[in-house]
Amino acid sequence: MPAAGSAFTQLHQHLHHTRLLGSISSTLYYDQNTVMPAAGAAWRGEQLALLARQLHERQSSDVYAELVAAAEAELGADAPPEQHRNLQLLRLELDRQRCLDPALVGALAQAQSRGNAIWQDARSRNDFAAFAPALKELIALRQLQASQLSAAESVPRSPWEILAQPFEPDVSKARLDELFAPLKAELPPLLEQVAAGGAPSSPTAPPAVAVERADLPEALQEQLCAELLDSWGYDNSRCQRSRSAHPFSCTVGPHDFRITTRVVPGQPLSSFLATAHEWGHSLYEQGLPRTDDHYFPWPLGEATSMGVHESQSLFWECRVARSRAFAERWYPRFCQGTGAGAATDPWGGPLGFWRALNPLKPGLIRVEADELSYCLHIVLRFELELALLEQDMPVEDLPGQWNQRMLALLGVEPATDSEGCLQDIHWAEGLFGYFPSYALGHLISAQLSETFEQKNGPIQDLISAGEESSLQAWLAGSVWPLGRSVNGEELVERVSGRALSTRPFLTYLRNKVEALSGNP
Amino acid sequence: MPAAGSAFTQLHQHLHHTRLLGSISSTLYYDQNTVMPAAGAAWRGEQLALLARQLHERQSSDVYAELVAAAEAELGADAPPEQHRNLQLLRLELDRQRCLDPALVGALAQAQSRGNAIWQDARSRNDFAAFAPALKELIALRQLQASQLSAAESVPRSPWEILAQPFEPDVSKARLDELFAPLKAELPPLLEQVAAGGAPSSPTAPPAVAVERADLPEALQEQLCAELLDSWGYDNSRCQRSRSAHPFSCTVGPHDFRITTRVVPGQPLSSFLATAHEWGHSLYEQGLPRTDDHYFPWPLGEATSMGVHESQSLFWECRVARSRAFAERWYPRFCQGTGAGAATDPWGGPLGFWRALNPLKPGLIRVEADELSYCLHIVLRFELELALLEQDMPVEDLPGQWNQRMLALLGVEPATDSEGCLQDIHWAEGLFGYFPSYALGHLISAQLSETFEQKNGPIQDLISAGEESSLQAWLAGSVWPLGRSVNGEELVERVSGRALSTRPFLTYLRNKVEALSGNP
Repeated sequence: MPAAGSAFTQLHQHLHHTRLLGSISSTLYYDQNTVMPAAGAAWRGEQLALLARQLHERQSSDVYAELVAAAEAELGADAPPEQHRNLQLLRLELDRQRCLDPALVGALAQAQSRGNAIWQDARSRNDFAAFAPALKELIALRQLQASQLSAAESVPRSPWEILAQPFEPDVSKARLDELFAPLKAELPPLLEQVAAGGAPSSPTAPPAVAVERADLPEALQEQLCAELLDSWGYDNSRCQRSRSAHPFSCTVGPHDFRITTRVVPGQPLSSFLATAHEWGHSLYEQGLPRTDDHYFPWPLGEATSMGVHESQSLFWECRVARSRAFAERWYPRFCQGTGAGAATDPWGGPLGFWRALNPLKPGLIRVEADELSYCLHIVLRFELELALLEQDMPVEDLPGQWNQRMLALLGVEPATDSEGCLQDIHWAEGLFGYFPSYALGHLISAQLSETFEQKNGPIQDLISAGEESSLQAWLAGSVWPLGRSVNGEELVERVSGRALSTRPFLTYLRNKVEALSGNP
Repeated sequence: MPAAGSAFTQLHQHLHHTRLLGSISSTLYYDQNTVMPAAGAAWRGEQLALLARQLHERQSSDVYAELVAAAEAELGADAPPEQHRNLQLLRLELDRQRCLDPALVGALAQAQSRGNAIWQDARSRNDFAAFAPALKELIALRQLQASQLSAAESVPRSPWEILAQPFEPDVSKARLDELFAPLKAELPPLLEQVAAGGAPSSPTAPPAVAVERADLPEALQEQLCAELLDSWGYDNSRCQRSRSAHPFSCTVGPHDFRITTRVVPGQPLSSFLATAHEWGHSLYEQGLPRTDDHYFPWPLGEATSMGVHESQSLFWECRVARSRAFAERWYPRFCQGTGAGAATDPWGGPLGFWRALNPLKPGLIRVEADELSYCLHIVLRFELELALLEQDMPVEDLPGQWNQRMLALLGVEPATDSEGCLQDIHWAEGLFGYFPSYALGHLISAQLSETFEQKNGPIQDLISAGEESSLQAWLAGSVWPLGRSVNGEELVERVSGRALSTRPFLTYLRNKVEALSGNP
């Protein structure tokens, strides 16, 4: 129910209808990425384009603009701050939407769908040339979009910054440079320290290659994922888990949450960690405020930024599932699954299992990356996006540039584009400006975790006691209900009392490297 | 591309857009019945209602009416007959849509979605009382719909007849009575003859109970279904198979076809036969004319009736998969799957396996029914629909009436409503007027098969030779391209040269009963 007056009532109904359309689009996206046969792609593109046009129309029409203006007129100075905030966010998005040419909106939706299909095929055949034209088209469309949107910006922003706003409100290249500089400075030496024998690849640890070869049967991986979710309160009357080429989380309705995973041959722990990760995303969505007048379907009931979203998934993946306490708890179950006794298990004991969950070895694939190297994958993508969108780098140069920068930042070089610049779905759908949120997620997760521990003691102790529910309860009380009342950086400041910084993340990493390199 | 002139071009675009919306609705339906968690039902209902309102608007708006009128005005006497037919069908549907109150359209879509969810739950808990209010609402809404639609009928039709038109154009109760009378007269004695020992339950056959108990592991059933589809040209770049509570086939786009099956404990051959059945539906959809100016997205590119649709699924289920030649070909594969040697297999040889595929024993569940009893299940539903919609039978009487009529017609009585009047999804979505099409499907399939054999020799011989592709080629040449150029009965007359009758079906059944009762 709306908060007040008839303009609010009408606006509420309008937003509800818009949410229905958006969630239909999400359902089609979910279907497309889990079960749709390849030949369905062109038609699906037309369906999504139709919905995108309808959504754009609803979010930019004169009728809607009048509804927003009427609600603004109705809004008294004594109205609750939530109403002010909701209208302020709606006004910003309305102004942005009204800058866009509807033809561009439809063209983008079609290009995204086509790009997705071409990418799936190109990646499976390691054929960057087949994908390049689609990528060029998406870049050109996004540049055009940024130029149309620039009229709505209240502060000067570059094309990349404009495109990044929907994912990370108020983000700037300068702030990212400031936050990424310590990562670029400190992560490579930390990686070198590990490689030099100070950590898991030291002689006392089992060789990494043995760990990699200890593959687990697909059915067992599925079973372990299901058990993990059960232990974290997964409710199959509200949630659904499927398989897809790229793991994702997707909210299909206010009480309908989907996550996907994939089983990667040779990466026996990948599906387990990806499940923890996507579940973190889903928990945040499930915990967003819904019931009050000011929330669903209003902006305040939405996730505030992709960085905060990612902090939630990384919390469950890294702080919990990759932790020593968690490894020790799950180690017997994994041994039982492989049929190995404690003496003959492929990990050589619980410490080895923990190390297998934290290889700390630079790899080629972002979604398989460990906490030390992950942010370097992001820095690479951030810089390449700037090159493609703002510095005229030809698309043809992407594979070469990718490989060269991988070598420079991470010391590894992909043998194929499939495990290089074709690995991610984002650019296949023209999502530029998104990647930095992943790195922000690491920083935010670390700062929130530090705050939790200052108040409640070590997270490790709770995990050892099997009390992850108290972690969930803290997030459910402190983080999730904030919705979009604050932006990502404000959320961190609100919860931790300090501005976002890289310090908690780097401190956490140094401690983890030390612990991993110690003897059992 | 449209056939001619600018009114046709605009109408073509309008219909294309309408098809997009309809297929979005189909995708949501597919998702709902395969993966959607239960808590998503209410929101899904709102989504489907929104799409139903949009569809109704597109199919009844003044803009659309003007487009149709303009195309009619543009249509010259020398225009191709396909254009005349398309416009005639569009006009009929337009007049019907314009009779309907948009509020009723939305209310129906919501009630259908809610009914589906309540039914799933009520059936699982055997709780008819929980479902009764939803059914009452659906009946009332359908009665209201029939009364609104009656204004568009060119001939007097009863409420049930009006509701049946979309499924079976031009159907009447009188014609159904005429076709069903021989079935009611001849099927029960045939069933009695079998029960008295003239057929599979004779002493030479293995006891039916042994066959029932020879359950096959779920993974093996899935594998056999996949192999069956592979042998029939299943193309996973265009098709997708999932699991659902009730098997169905669903076209999600012009190149995107889905079928579902279910594994029924204690019915080891059920999923295999259901797969054959749903694949038959899908083949028809895949074979509808699409490429020419007059077809997709025009009416001529659509299936002509549910009876014809069902004749295609029954053809592959009954004529092919339940045939002796097919049983003999697949028997070794089933034996291999169970790990049994030919001497110890649960069916006692290929004839026993054929008998297991054709139990010819009246049962409670329509979708598991054999060819002898199937049409009696339909007669029962047809009569109960008339009672509910036209004869004021209270919904509360349904379970009792159902059980009483089952006993009278089939000699069996359900112990629970879950295996009685709650077994089918149709009424849960307010689909009245649909069931008779299933029986018509049996009659049409038999008459088409007789025609095929008169021209090409016994179907059995082709199956023995593994040449089902020639059956498919005949249907692809003779039946599927007709689209909606003719109605169901006209299609039969066009292909067979005779009016539809029960004779080919009853002759086929008598021969089959005789063959099944013979010794190896």
